[in-house]
Amino acid sequence: MSGASGPAPVFRLDLSYDGTGFHGYARQPGLRTVQGELEEGLSRILRGAEFSTEVAGRTDAGVHARGQVAGVTLDPPPGEIPFPHRWAGSLTKLLAPEIVVFRAERAPDGFSARFDAVRRTYRYRILNREFPDPLRRRIAWHVKHPLDAEAMNRALEHLVGEHDFASFCRRAEGRSTVRTVERAEWSRRPDDMLRLEISAPAFCHQMVRSIAAWSVEAGRGRRNPDSTPAVLQARDRSAAAGAAPPHGLTLWQVDYSPPNSP
Amino acid sequence: MSGASGPAPVFRLDLSYDGTGFHGYARQPGLRTVQGELEEGLSRILRGAEFSTEVAGRTDAGVHARGQVAGVTLDPPPGEIPFPHRWAGSLTKLLAPEIVVFRAERAPDGFSARFDAVRRTYRYRILNREFPDPLRRRIAWHVKHPLDAEAMNRALEHLVGEHDFASFCRRAEGRSTVRTVERAEWSRRPDDMLRLEISAPAFCHQMVRSIAAWSVEAGRGRRNPDSTPAVLQARDRSAAAGAAPPHGLTLWQVDYSPPNSP
Repeated sequence: MSGASGPAPVFRLDLSYDGTGFHGYARQPGLRTVQGELEEGLSRILRGAEFSTEVAGRTDAGVHARGQVAGVTLDPPPGEIPFPHRWAGSLTKLLAPEIVVFRAERAPDGFSARFDAVRRTYRYRILNREFPDPLRRRIAWHVKHPLDAEAMNRALEHLVGEHDFASFCRRAEGRSTVRTVERAEWSRRPDDMLRLEISAPAFCHQMVRSIAAWSVEAGRGRRNPDSTPAVLQARDRSAAAGAAPPHGLTLWQVDYSPPNSP
Repeated sequence: MSGASGPAPVFRLDLSYDGTGFHGYARQPGLRTVQGELEEGLSRILRGAEFSTEVAGRTDAGVHARGQVAGVTLDPPPGEIPFPHRWAGSLTKLLAPEIVVFRAERAPDGFSARFDAVRRTYRYRILNREFPDPLRRRIAWHVKHPLDAEAMNRALEHLVGEHDFASFCRRAEGRSTVRTVERAEWSRRPDDMLRLEISAPAFCHQMVRSIAAWSVEAGRGRRNPDSTPAVLQARDRSAAAGAAPPHGLTLWQVDYSPPNSP
């Protein structure tokens, strides 16, 4: 982490993106990813300095972000520490219009965008009416069956708190699937929108989309919301209802301690 | 209009579209237009029947619609009058995802989507903050200079009522540019949005976008909102401030008498 010239400086980037045209956040060879684009932009700005990046939430293909946070570590530390106040504007100009870096600043030494985050908040949007909306087709899942928001919230009540979310996780790979949902609520919004707001210190893979899909089953009356504890108990993905489509999901906000969010 | 088998039947279609990928509503040879796509879909549904279409508001390239209204006249009247209750679903499936026909119904004989409309309502959206939002880049004009909404509304006050809007019209072509604005108001919306809602029985070409651009000049403090009467008086486009970009504009609603709106 440190060299003769002191500890490796870390910078915090706050960014939004439209996930529609990306194969997710994480770099993958030969595919267009947010990380790939961002690091290409950083390479140009940092002119050959070595760096590595880390991110608060590795979003899947098609998932959006409003308040994603990335850390950029310059290692080895350069002779002169760059002054990041212009990075946000420069990166936003350099990158595709689907990515906007709206803040860039020096972070405390050793800052970890991933491990220092104390809370992630996601939103999942459903357009709930007979016909789709061409202007919202990229940001909301269109569900034409009438949904009972009360039943959806009753299903969520069983998920708040600390539970083993194995039934709502994909690719657990032997790691713990115990998570703590701090808050989860569906609300009716203007223009036939239903919105889930859900916060936890951390989520497992596809957890929010799995919870959204399960909520919709409860909201359509196809599953009893009070069967949710049994689904948790099963610790088996097939007990739940799969994953809702990615385009309804947005990583809304990441909180650090002390609160340091957009 | 009528033949041996009675008057030509007219059908009313209510549609929404994302104008981003279209060269406007009106058909133009060799270009992708909403009318072109819609009529192609109708041809397939009507299986060779002859028809003509008419529209409430011919939107420009890049302009969106939430509640556009089109009339479809079958002339000559077919032996059997088609039953339109499935057209909405069929057209929505046939057409590009950017166009949604959300209602289709038989209209009174002689119905004119264009001339029977008693009120058009448009919305113009501005994202007013330093950085753009990738998820709203197609539906709002990004203006980074701070805008004074009060000054913008003071400019609008001078435009409500009957005036000669020649300074705010493009391509007048010798026709009257006298219009009656019934209501016009900017309001601050969540997430740094500013929204103009404006209604009139009819607008001249580029009138809403010209009013939006003028409002922004007033909101930035570059023009005095109380100079608006002098701009009207000039009856000259160069006295105003050009046109705001098309992607911030949406044809929101068209009213008929008696009120018959989505």
